[in-house]
Amino acid sequence: MLLLTKNRVFVLWWLILCSGLAQAQETNNGKWIWYPGDFAIWLHTQTSGLRQERGQPYPPFWRVDAPYGLVRFQKVYDIKSPTAIKVFAEGNFQIRVDQQIISDFDPMNIRLPAGKHQLRILVENHGALPALLVRGDRVFTDETWQVTNQNQRFEKAEAGQFADPESPPSHFSLHYTPMDYRVLEQDDRRLLLDFEKETYGKVILERLQGRGNLHVYYGETKQEALAEKLAETYDRVAVREGAPQTDTLAARAFRYVYIVADRDVPLPSVKALYEFLPVENRGGFSCSDTLLNRIYDVSLYTLHLNTRAFLIDGIKRDHWIWSGDAYQSYLMNFYTFFDEAVNKRTIYALRGHDPVETHINTILDYSFYWLIGIYDHYLYTGDTSFVKQVYPRMKTLLQFCLERRNTEGFVEGLRGDWVFIDWAEMDKKGAISFEQLLLAKSLEATAYCAGLAGDEEAAAAYRETAVSLKKKIEAVFWDERKHAFVHTRENGRLSTDVTRYANLFAVLFDYVSPEKKQQIKEHVILNDSVQAITTPYMKFYELAALCEIGEKAAAVNYVRDYWGGMLEAGATTFWETFDPNEQGKERYAMYGRPFGKSLCHAWGANPVYLFGKYLLGVRPLSPGYKTYEITPSLGGLDWIDGKVPTPSGSIGVFMDRQNVRVNPGTGRGTLKLQSRKMPKVDTGNAVVKSLGNNWYAIQLEPSVAEYTVRYWSNEK
Amino acid sequence: MLLLTKNRVFVLWWLILCSGLAQAQETNNGKWIWYPGDFAIWLHTQTSGLRQERGQPYPPFWRVDAPYGLVRFQKVYDIKSPTAIKVFAEGNFQIRVDQQIISDFDPMNIRLPAGKHQLRILVENHGALPALLVRGDRVFTDETWQVTNQNQRFEKAEAGQFADPESPPSHFSLHYTPMDYRVLEQDDRRLLLDFEKETYGKVILERLQGRGNLHVYYGETKQEALAEKLAETYDRVAVREGAPQTDTLAARAFRYVYIVADRDVPLPSVKALYEFLPVENRGGFSCSDTLLNRIYDVSLYTLHLNTRAFLIDGIKRDHWIWSGDAYQSYLMNFYTFFDEAVNKRTIYALRGHDPVETHINTILDYSFYWLIGIYDHYLYTGDTSFVKQVYPRMKTLLQFCLERRNTEGFVEGLRGDWVFIDWAEMDKKGAISFEQLLLAKSLEATAYCAGLAGDEEAAAAYRETAVSLKKKIEAVFWDERKHAFVHTRENGRLSTDVTRYANLFAVLFDYVSPEKKQQIKEHVILNDSVQAITTPYMKFYELAALCEIGEKAAAVNYVRDYWGGMLEAGATTFWETFDPNEQGKERYAMYGRPFGKSLCHAWGANPVYLFGKYLLGVRPLSPGYKTYEITPSLGGLDWIDGKVPTPSGSIGVFMDRQNVRVNPGTGRGTLKLQSRKMPKVDTGNAVVKSLGNNWYAIQLEPSVAEYTVRYWSNEK
Repeated sequence: MLLLTKNRVFVLWWLILCSGLAQAQETNNGKWIWYPGDFAIWLHTQTSGLRQERGQPYPPFWRVDAPYGLVRFQKVYDIKSPTAIKVFAEGNFQIRVDQQIISDFDPMNIRLPAGKHQLRILVENHGALPALLVRGDRVFTDETWQVTNQNQRFEKAEAGQFADPESPPSHFSLHYTPMDYRVLEQDDRRLLLDFEKETYGKVILERLQGRGNLHVYYGETKQEALAEKLAETYDRVAVREGAPQTDTLAARAFRYVYIVADRDVPLPSVKALYEFLPVENRGGFSCSDTLLNRIYDVSLYTLHLNTRAFLIDGIKRDHWIWSGDAYQSYLMNFYTFFDEAVNKRTIYALRGHDPVETHINTILDYSFYWLIGIYDHYLYTGDTSFVKQVYPRMKTLLQFCLERRNTEGFVEGLRGDWVFIDWAEMDKKGAISFEQLLLAKSLEATAYCAGLAGDEEAAAAYRETAVSLKKKIEAVFWDERKHAFVHTRENGRLSTDVTRYANLFAVLFDYVSPEKKQQIKEHVILNDSVQAITTPYMKFYELAALCEIGEKAAAVNYVRDYWGGMLEAGATTFWETFDPNEQGKERYAMYGRPFGKSLCHAWGANPVYLFGKYLLGVRPLSPGYKTYEITPSLGGLDWIDGKVPTPSGSIGVFMDRQNVRVNPGTGRGTLKLQSRKMPKVDTGNAVVKSLGNNWYAIQLEPSVAEYTVRYWSNEK
Repeated sequence: MLLLTKNRVFVLWWLILCSGLAQAQETNNGKWIWYPGDFAIWLHTQTSGLRQERGQPYPPFWRVDAPYGLVRFQKVYDIKSPTAIKVFAEGNFQIRVDQQIISDFDPMNIRLPAGKHQLRILVENHGALPALLVRGDRVFTDETWQVTNQNQRFEKAEAGQFADPESPPSHFSLHYTPMDYRVLEQDDRRLLLDFEKETYGKVILERLQGRGNLHVYYGETKQEALAEKLAETYDRVAVREGAPQTDTLAARAFRYVYIVADRDVPLPSVKALYEFLPVENRGGFSCSDTLLNRIYDVSLYTLHLNTRAFLIDGIKRDHWIWSGDAYQSYLMNFYTFFDEAVNKRTIYALRGHDPVETHINTILDYSFYWLIGIYDHYLYTGDTSFVKQVYPRMKTLLQFCLERRNTEGFVEGLRGDWVFIDWAEMDKKGAISFEQLLLAKSLEATAYCAGLAGDEEAAAAYRETAVSLKKKIEAVFWDERKHAFVHTRENGRLSTDVTRYANLFAVLFDYVSPEKKQQIKEHVILNDSVQAITTPYMKFYELAALCEIGEKAAAVNYVRDYWGGMLEAGATTFWETFDPNEQGKERYAMYGRPFGKSLCHAWGANPVYLFGKYLLGVRPLSPGYKTYEITPSLGGLDWIDGKVPTPSGSIGVFMDRQNVRVNPGTGRGTLKLQSRKMPKVDTGNAVVKSLGNNWYAIQLEPSVAEYTVRYWSNEK
């Protein structure tokens, strides 16, 4: 017996009403749609509190927005004959055709009149996420629908991978698969399990009985698990007398699990489930150096563990989305999984809704990475509709940043702002050159997106501001005697300190002349007297800059030492920080806690990006790889082999000291090679063009499956 | 067996953990607290979709906000010796003392160190409302705690009537009591029930069996219930074979219920529950006219039915909160239930969170009523802390309004704005004088509240803008030849139309000289050639203005005719509109639907306000009745008797043609009387002061239980 009044019945209609004689035509046309960003924003409310620290929940310290609970979807359709649709909604809904509410309908067979009409569906769901799926042969939901939270502004609806009526957006779930472990130690009250590598999942305790507590301590190292209450995460299970039961604990990060039972509680039987986002590596890399191959594999695994509902910083800690960390993950994602959805979820969750009241994650630089990240996402994916959707939120965030400039037009950390830059000792006061460069790039990125969104006025204004800002940055911060950008200016007084940050980004953003790049290379990047970068976070940019200035072999050597050092120290995933000089306990300590350091940190996966972009040498030149470049480089190795994903298929690259083999993508590619003699192409009618200075360019046709090119290496 | 890890376990901690040897001292100190406004905002998400129209849900057409799901509460305490607290939270929580997270605690016995420390509790609840109750003898939650949604701004926490750990805010519920009905008609498939007056509640169907549908049609009139699918609300219950079951339907508005069963469904047994907010009438009114007494009683019942989670417009339709309707309900509430909580809930739910993107309810005038209503709430209650709490939201709404002024500084309806004023034919274009008056009053109200909130700069700016606006209104809109404000000015051209709206409000706001009031009285209010007011909505202001200009008897006569006319037409609650000339079907039709008219509309309860404020004559002169005035008036009646509530007790007033008896309030009151001779006070040492023109003032001492005053009536 079912009560069919819709009010307060927050269930899917299709579960209730499947009656009706004349059924709508069977069709799979139609996708679940929702208010742009709100699936991510809702999912973020479900996951942002997952961080646990010593038994305590640890949600973020910034505002976490909720999705809009009342959303109107609409579409003007124009059809020659009547049709029927099926309507599935998450939440209560009301349907109007040309403003008129319709009553007494069977949601599985709603007749729509022929002609041009407006179909309007209001969905209310304050528990999860208002979402709508209309299926029909000619009228169905997709990204062309308009949507509003009833603030009198309309946007285009967002859709994703959800098309099945039985799998609406709120059913999103990570996947699970059983995993094995080795018992390291066991007596009648203690059990130490080794999963043999860092992992993330749920411990299942079976045949729980007795009376008392069962303590479950998680460790990224054995020491951490055995440290019991000093471990970063642990659970306590209270066992009450009765029939034996099974408990599935919350998912945690660990390699080791240490279970300690109270006297009257027998040890349970233990199983475990691995929890993961089902993405596959569409990239790939191998080379003549087995250590680097291991580094690539462990990097990929590290990235995969941190690629979940969102691109998080670390699986144990913080298990949060940080814009600066996420920016690197977007880029790493493009050389591996090419999972556009997780990038977009991350971008929306970081931003939430208006009003903008603080910087993203409260960090000045992180607002800029958020803006720049959207441009990069667009460059790799060519997803114009996402840019149009998210652009209004770029505009309000950029506005917030611009309003906080000082009288000179430079940004400074104001009250409540965290000026992060990197975990390192440095002056954070005044107008820091690094932040100005990020602002300039943010202006360019937002100007570009404004153009895509048709906001020409804003685009022009941002471009103009960027141009004058860049001039001013160079005029103010470039020190001719130091051959570098200095670090900051406070109260009109320029600092004499040179740090690497602004100088690295000036190279990466291509903001300075080749001459100045050379000066930066010599006087900053290769200058050991300038304070060294020690975090893999900022190393991401330093290694990229090294490659950009032609020092790929140096970058490869650094990876071998630094990441190889972690493997040697027993890492099964890459760490938040690593200092080869630290030994024993201090190796795992951070933030004043003995096991505070995250041993599986997304930014530790840097090599997957570095190898793809700078050894395989693949990068898009125009959005979505419509045009692209391949500039492979051995970086001192004997051979490299791999592939890089694009929105449509992958690009394959092999190189050794004589030959390059390339499997082109679907866009227009250019292979660039340095060779002592004009390279010879064995395939097709390819034309080799000399660029001077021993550089050659070969146009790649998408119709050719594989090019083989003989070249004469410059490398020793 | 219970899993004690807190993550993802959205339950109250106290349900789980009641262990601990050393218990905190038993105390009832402490109240549930939450982010200001968020209880109302959450409750609004739970109730704003209750409207049903012909089987379809009908939520509002404006943005409905969600509460913040992640809220931090904090308090710096200073105690001489250690203490223990109990912590109850709705949601996951994390506790810090002086920034340090505490672990492994028993929430029923958390030890706090002596000295000055910061206690900080972060509560996450994306399902309902993060709320916190700390009980302790010296450290406990109340309105002095600071709270933030982590936007880096702190506010004072809100608290309400919730103090019991077992009754957190999200357990808020209306009350229920069984109600009887009369069976009007019955056969084996149809059942018509008469509840003998308009009511609101849930129909319960018992012993449901058979197979098919049961249709339940609700009617405010018998005709409506019998009209089946033309009724405004109905439910369909699908009965499936099996053991007899009971269904409790959603609450609806009705007097009649018509149940129609399919052939194979026997009629069930029917019960019903009345649903209500438990408030009592702390005011009261009776007089020598039994019709007026019935009008008062029915008004009170009408108001009570519309006083629920919020002050809604009508119980059948719209079952929404409308700011203009609510404003009148606040005032009626002050002469009856004096339920401050429902006013505050309504004010917060109407406003929601920032950003302000549209006017309140999308209506220009309704933004102004919202601002003015807060001032009135303060005047009657003296609740400074509420004003301080809500003031930031007044400021952003007023800012929104001010930014939308035209170049002359007048507000006009812009794209997307609804200029409502009243349901009547009129020009809504250009700068309408009525809207300018509301803006001026809003500026004054917000300036006053800015002063209370310590925002002196804004207070001064608003005051200044109000002064110049009022001057400009009079200069631009007052027509010397018409002796009145004209209706509008469009594109610099003044209209020659005079409508009542601006003129009524100029009198009510005391914005014009006594001479101009006389002109308005003569040339507008008592001038039948000026388009008449026909809705009880605008009648509210017209009758008040009539009383203000000394025409109380005319107002009473109007009430007798208009409201008496509804009683004669069979009303058991007062209607949305009433036209004595309409008969039969057209009496109940509205918005093009045969039963579209609401027959239980809050604004129909006007007499409870009119009788209290203008016959009993009681009104506060300073906030919270610290000083007040009683100016009783017979309005042509032989005697009146009643009381008016204040924040502390009631004020009693009796008057006949010789005597006035008064039971003063706790503040400093003044009784004002018109008398042909100096009145004689039989009680205390009261001093009678002559005010001239036969008016006398008597100071009332709160220590005197009752004053009896002999006077000599002016009335014929």
